[in-house]
Amino acid sequence: MSTVTVIGAGNFGSVVAGVAAKGGAGVQVLARDAEKARAVAGPLGGTAGAIGDEVTGDVVVLAVPYGAVADVLSAYPGAFDGKVLVDVTNPVDFSTFDDLVVPADSSAAKVVQDAAPGARVVKAFNTNFGGTLASGEIGSVPTTVLVAGDDAAAKQAVVELVTAAGLRGVDAGSLKRARELEAVGLLQMTLAGAEKISWGGGLALIS
Amino acid sequence: MSTVTVIGAGNFGSVVAGVAAKGGAGVQVLARDAEKARAVAGPLGGTAGAIGDEVTGDVVVLAVPYGAVADVLSAYPGAFDGKVLVDVTNPVDFSTFDDLVVPADSSAAKVVQDAAPGARVVKAFNTNFGGTLASGEIGSVPTTVLVAGDDAAAKQAVVELVTAAGLRGVDAGSLKRARELEAVGLLQMTLAGAEKISWGGGLALIS
Repeated sequence: MSTVTVIGAGNFGSVVAGVAAKGGAGVQVLARDAEKARAVAGPLGGTAGAIGDEVTGDVVVLAVPYGAVADVLSAYPGAFDGKVLVDVTNPVDFSTFDDLVVPADSSAAKVVQDAAPGARVVKAFNTNFGGTLASGEIGSVPTTVLVAGDDAAAKQAVVELVTAAGLRGVDAGSLKRARELEAVGLLQMTLAGAEKISWGGGLALIS
Repeated sequence: MSTVTVIGAGNFGSVVAGVAAKGGAGVQVLARDAEKARAVAGPLGGTAGAIGDEVTGDVVVLAVPYGAVADVLSAYPGAFDGKVLVDVTNPVDFSTFDDLVVPADSSAAKVVQDAAPGARVVKAFNTNFGGTLASGEIGSVPTTVLVAGDDAAAKQAVVELVTAAGLRGVDAGSLKRARELEAVGLLQMTLAGAEKISWGGGLALIS
């Protein structure tokens, strides 16, 4: 099993690192604050460092807020070429909670792909709240990770990663579908914000 | 209980008319082919007619394909003023199954509202497949109808209509959220088209 590098040691990065470790992958965690990265990686038997340190994973997860993605990418010019680069962001305008900050006909994933053209960008995890990703369940339904991208092998790597951790992974189509996945992300957040659902709920995929 | 007018006697219109009748509403069905409308309305104890006939319902459901909506609206200039006008459409480009035909920063519901400015437009039912709307279940999860609109009382009328029929109705926010609801509609259709889910599955809201 390969190594997964999670960039970002916040709540969501911590959950994704946990999923990778649960599935048997080696874990590297990088964060602005290397101490915080160590606090996440240590209990998982992983390695840690600061953003800018060498990336050892074949799969790299951008688990920082959308507003910080450009900075992370500029710290790694060309370093993600050929790697599976997973964008988990929901580019919500947090000042209004009513819009996305990416162009309406685009997506955060498309912006990432444009900024890292040599990377094999995959959109994943953004339709999952941290709690349901960690527990593996939304209510009584198994948590599904929806995975979109233009590189079939890259998508498959992410599906296998989450499947190894006991989650369901479903190929949601081309990277263009990231637009719809990010719409789902916004919708779920507004429903939770309005207390129509809890942060342990959400839209569960039923086959 | 008021009367619900369903315009369109196809599969989805037939299911929505069934939901209204199940909830105890009077049902009027109008279709291009009045005979077809009668075939839907008759078993529900409702009335029927052709598009262009007088609309008797306080709630009017546009249950025609998105491409036919403009024609229906032009047959009823001003007639929907003050009424609850429910847009159920998924404005999918069926030639590619990869895009919506409405502008990326808009929605079918917004287009309907612009074309019928006096109507109280509500987006609803578009995230439900006909089968799960008729059965009331997605797998083991009760079917939720997501309802978006700018008129609180209009949304409430639709929530009560579906609740009376044994479904769950959830206020999904302003009419602007129709953009996200239509993204959910496209996503579900592409997932079903790719056989990742069945037409009896979909995204089930878990609170």
